[in-house]
Amino acid sequence: MEKLLEITLLYDFYGELLTPNQKNIYELYYQNDLSLGEISKNLGISRQGVYDTLKRSEKLLYEYEQRLRLLERFQAKKILAKKILSCTESIEKYLGLETNHDKNCLNDLNTIKKLVYKILDQE
Amino acid sequence: MEKLLEITLLYDFYGELLTPNQKNIYELYYQNDLSLGEISKNLGISRQGVYDTLKRSEKLLYEYEQRLRLLERFQAKKILAKKILSCTESIEKYLGLETNHDKNCLNDLNTIKKLVYKILDQE
Repeated sequence: MEKLLEITLLYDFYGELLTPNQKNIYELYYQNDLSLGEISKNLGISRQGVYDTLKRSEKLLYEYEQRLRLLERFQAKKILAKKILSCTESIEKYLGLETNHDKNCLNDLNTIKKLVYKILDQE
Repeated sequence: MEKLLEITLLYDFYGELLTPNQKNIYELYYQNDLSLGEISKNLGISRQGVYDTLKRSEKLLYEYEQRLRLLERFQAKKILAKKILSCTESIEKYLGLETNHDKNCLNDLNTIKKLVYKILDQE
């Protein structure tokens, strides 16, 4: 996985475990796209201090992942969810729209699909 | 939720964030059912020390939940998963076993059910 994407996902999972200061610097750098120099100027701390906090936060995010594996398990769940969606598609192919039974099945299949997306959204 | 069950679930989610010592005392107390006195004797630390470590661990588990809400989200996912399973049952009712199409649908429905359980197992 590309490192920037990985860091972003790890921050989504574990950002709440960082301190307010770590979160603030992370967000200024990765989300607001400020440079180390700009953050240093804005917050009135040294450029090295900003850099150290960023590196420390990244290290912590990777350590949390090593312990809890939320990102790894999320990726696994996404694969399982895709398989469910492909099963619903396959069932849809077998069904026509002639009978009320078929229509009821299609309604239930649509509900299943929505619920699968909702489960992934719960992450 | 009953407190013992809640603590057990929180430990499943966040136990890996505790120190080896905190984990050890937690497991001796909650999983091996040893008393504070027995743990104190076995580990050669004061009864008060055992108690404090346990209380500190419990506090940490609740704090992690407050930040990451993994247990809360897991409960929400279980409800969504149950709804998916009830949709698969409802589709099964509409299907007969007369046609090959129906049989294929049932196979896919069984796969969906297995995948839903696997998603919950990923927690």
